[in-house]
Amino acid sequence: MSNDKASPIRPTDDEARALARGLINQARFGALGVIDPDTGMPLVTRIAVIAGPDGLPLSLVSDLSAHTSALRANPACSLMLGEPSDKGDPLTHPRISLQGKARFTRHGDPRHADLATYFTSIQPKAKLYIGFADFSLMELEIEQALLNGGFGKAFILTPQDLTPA
Amino acid sequence: MSNDKASPIRPTDDEARALARGLINQARFGALGVIDPDTGMPLVTRIAVIAGPDGLPLSLVSDLSAHTSALRANPACSLMLGEPSDKGDPLTHPRISLQGKARFTRHGDPRHADLATYFTSIQPKAKLYIGFADFSLMELEIEQALLNGGFGKAFILTPQDLTPA
Repeated sequence: MSNDKASPIRPTDDEARALARGLINQARFGALGVIDPDTGMPLVTRIAVIAGPDGLPLSLVSDLSAHTSALRANPACSLMLGEPSDKGDPLTHPRISLQGKARFTRHGDPRHADLATYFTSIQPKAKLYIGFADFSLMELEIEQALLNGGFGKAFILTPQDLTPA
Repeated sequence: MSNDKASPIRPTDDEARALARGLINQARFGALGVIDPDTGMPLVTRIAVIAGPDGLPLSLVSDLSAHTSALRANPACSLMLGEPSDKGDPLTHPRISLQGKARFTRHGDPRHADLATYFTSIQPKAKLYIGFADFSLMELEIEQALLNGGFGKAFILTPQDLTPA
């Protein structure tokens, strides 16, 4: 038996771009994929995520975490956003898989104060630890994104598709 | 400012093992991390997951998906399970990051019929497509797991820790 499907990737349209930006805007956490420097294997962990001042993902991570160590060795990573609610088929819920390189902004960096203020304006509880020396803000230099809008609705997006107009 | 923490990994105990097995048992989907064969970068996507007959993760994946193509080139992967509810701080919700190698069971394989029957007994909707030639059952040969039971509660588990007694 075969379902005789060709490439499942559809041409990108404004609806897909709006869906992708909405998934980033609504994010409060995401699944980060990095390469484990000890084994070369992927490692997926959960990180806090908000849409930063530029509309693109902004996270706050600790040097004590396995993902941050891995990103120091190799900044290539993937971030999946778009969480199913408790109801309905989770596989039909839209999600976006971003791929790119992590960029850290540490304490003392000229951009740190502004990004930290923005982050805690959205996530006030982070004030408890954003001042710790081992916590850095992390952005993603996005190279490509795979949007899955539900069964049979896949799109490959560029960084430009994700930038608010 | 520093929080002066040493290694965040705690010694594994029965409570950690029970939490890990519970996260696998309750899973209906997860975040899969693979290495993109075209770029060498990680890619995180969502897949359906249940606890298989052996109590370990069992998924159903399509050859048309980016993750399955990647796993054909390199079976090393990571699977994060444990989804926050709509309430509370998502970063305090327990999750487990499995690392291992994907093992596929295809149509015609002697184990396929039993695994497919088991899968659809838990996820009856999968009967709609489990018979398609491009869909395979996928298990994970787990090599290591990182359990995060909430802030400050991290454990490194072995495959034996995850096997039901």
